[in-house]
Amino acid sequence: MTAPAAAGQFDEIRREVDRALGRFLAVKAYQIAESGLPGLTVGLLQDFVFRGGKRVRPLLCMLGWRAAGGSGLRDTVTEVAASLELFHAFALIHDDVMDRSATRRGRPAVHRLVAEQHAARTDAMWFGTSTAILTGDFALAWSAEMLHSSGLTTEQLTAVLPLLDAMRDEVLHGQLLDLQATTQDVGDDRRALAVIHYKTAKYTVERPLHIGATLAGAGSEFRQRLSAYAIPLGEAYQLRDDLLGVFGDPVVTGKPALDDLRDAKPTMLMSVAWRNADARQRQLLRELVGSPGLSEQGADAIRDVLVSTGAVDEIERLIAIRRREALQALDDAGFPASDPLRHIANTLTARAS
Amino acid sequence: MTAPAAAGQFDEIRREVDRALGRFLAVKAYQIAESGLPGLTVGLLQDFVFRGGKRVRPLLCMLGWRAAGGSGLRDTVTEVAASLELFHAFALIHDDVMDRSATRRGRPAVHRLVAEQHAARTDAMWFGTSTAILTGDFALAWSAEMLHSSGLTTEQLTAVLPLLDAMRDEVLHGQLLDLQATTQDVGDDRRALAVIHYKTAKYTVERPLHIGATLAGAGSEFRQRLSAYAIPLGEAYQLRDDLLGVFGDPVVTGKPALDDLRDAKPTMLMSVAWRNADARQRQLLRELVGSPGLSEQGADAIRDVLVSTGAVDEIERLIAIRRREALQALDDAGFPASDPLRHIANTLTARAS
Repeated sequence: MTAPAAAGQFDEIRREVDRALGRFLAVKAYQIAESGLPGLTVGLLQDFVFRGGKRVRPLLCMLGWRAAGGSGLRDTVTEVAASLELFHAFALIHDDVMDRSATRRGRPAVHRLVAEQHAARTDAMWFGTSTAILTGDFALAWSAEMLHSSGLTTEQLTAVLPLLDAMRDEVLHGQLLDLQATTQDVGDDRRALAVIHYKTAKYTVERPLHIGATLAGAGSEFRQRLSAYAIPLGEAYQLRDDLLGVFGDPVVTGKPALDDLRDAKPTMLMSVAWRNADARQRQLLRELVGSPGLSEQGADAIRDVLVSTGAVDEIERLIAIRRREALQALDDAGFPASDPLRHIANTLTARAS
Repeated sequence: MTAPAAAGQFDEIRREVDRALGRFLAVKAYQIAESGLPGLTVGLLQDFVFRGGKRVRPLLCMLGWRAAGGSGLRDTVTEVAASLELFHAFALIHDDVMDRSATRRGRPAVHRLVAEQHAARTDAMWFGTSTAILTGDFALAWSAEMLHSSGLTTEQLTAVLPLLDAMRDEVLHGQLLDLQATTQDVGDDRRALAVIHYKTAKYTVERPLHIGATLAGAGSEFRQRLSAYAIPLGEAYQLRDDLLGVFGDPVVTGKPALDDLRDAKPTMLMSVAWRNADARQRQLLRELVGSPGLSEQGADAIRDVLVSTGAVDEIERLIAIRRREALQALDDAGFPASDPLRHIANTLTARAS
């Protein structure tokens, strides 16, 4: 399959996933209105899901299904894939509350949005946070419901539930590691890698592939071959994302280039820079990284340190190694339909967006 | 069955449920320690689950199972029942964040507890809230995992998942109604009853009974007969709880007698009092209810209004009607093992605790 053909196929999958999400949420909104219940959270979820997002997890779920020879029951599998995006909405909405993030997908984070919409209340911030917690809870509950009601056979359902349980567990452990990270942890590569392992490699890449493949009847041996591809790819994807968070174009990434630096996100990039930095550079990092009022000028000074310490080169090297490892694993695996997996590996680790 | 026999049976169910919960959380804690992951949230959950709680939902789940003729697979059903308590931990921990409650089960609410334990941090309050959100998320994810791994047959599993989805949906809708309640809603009985319907009648009483009965093979006709008992009983239980929240002994209820009044909890009790109050009494309610610094003296003034407006008598009347309705439904249903259901109806609506 050529790269344009794969890209076209991805767009088609995204459209089908979005149709499934749109349908599910529209039915919910209708039922809620019919019952005379408040439509606040379902409206927020509809807005959040369709304001953007690359649908990476649904896409990987569909590719896992095809790699394992999946065919037929396509609507059902698409709904399962879409349910992962609803789960992701839960993870992002709660993460943004916990990280005190101001923006998401180019617009205010849900807790901020609600606070702005209720600015007349004296407790607008609290109301925004509470509503965001509840909106995330709905997303989590509904992602399960969407999967349960997708039309899976009992064999598929019982095979896939333990993978779903593992996925939830892993992303929450990743979030806990993230939450407990303190400034003292900068320079601790193992800790930075552990967050990447749970929050991205397993949650974003490995589990969606596993779930899709399992729906096509794949067993644990097949899943292991997928993991050999998924884990290095997921790590490379996160390392690329961390670079883009500091050096990327906000228009493309959908979040201000300063957010990661203002939040002092404990990335591998920062960890390597800290290790390599001299006393003067460390002083600069200590002063500027995590400063809520960080200016573009200050951000440029940090970027200079990230480049001059060789941290950026080092991360590019780590990405290249993992990308190669993932592609090698793909060659070794001999999956029947591996071209889309090769294409997405390149997309997720490329410099552009 | 005599009342003491039923009480003894309930204690036995509670012990079995607690053993299942203890086992599940201990395995989680062990696996987390083995993986070198942080034990903060699993520790908080262990503390929260075992600091108290009446295990009403697991109890009703077991009674629903027995009422439908359940026998055999008792360990499995106990685990399903216990998973409802883990779900309840999620609901309470997140509710306490959203309601800004200070205490739960006689001790600080999870967000407060964590903030106190990290008082040295300048962002202790934020860290407490974030950790509580995440602890609730774990409880929700693990309640699903506990049910999935309980050993249900595929028939049981596929029959019970839609009920679980409905239960989650209902309690979240109840919480949204609660969150959106404002001081303008005082006096709106329909709104107060809607919260009771979703948060207690359906979530606490009807769904656990349905889930248990369904595990024993009951179908929708049987579930409808259970609902005729469950909905009025659940309403009566909440009305009793609201009375106890204002007039109950804090040692018995596990929360300070002033919390409901300080939080201006929009109860049916308050609604009726507001409707019946004269101008002077309304002025007093407006001033004192919801005041964060409410004194015991102020609370007594509110209590006087609740009594003198006839609101307390009216709520007692509503409880009595619903209690009778529930017991009548039980007589009509002709379940084989209905004595425990009769006993718990009396327990949940009695004046004492």
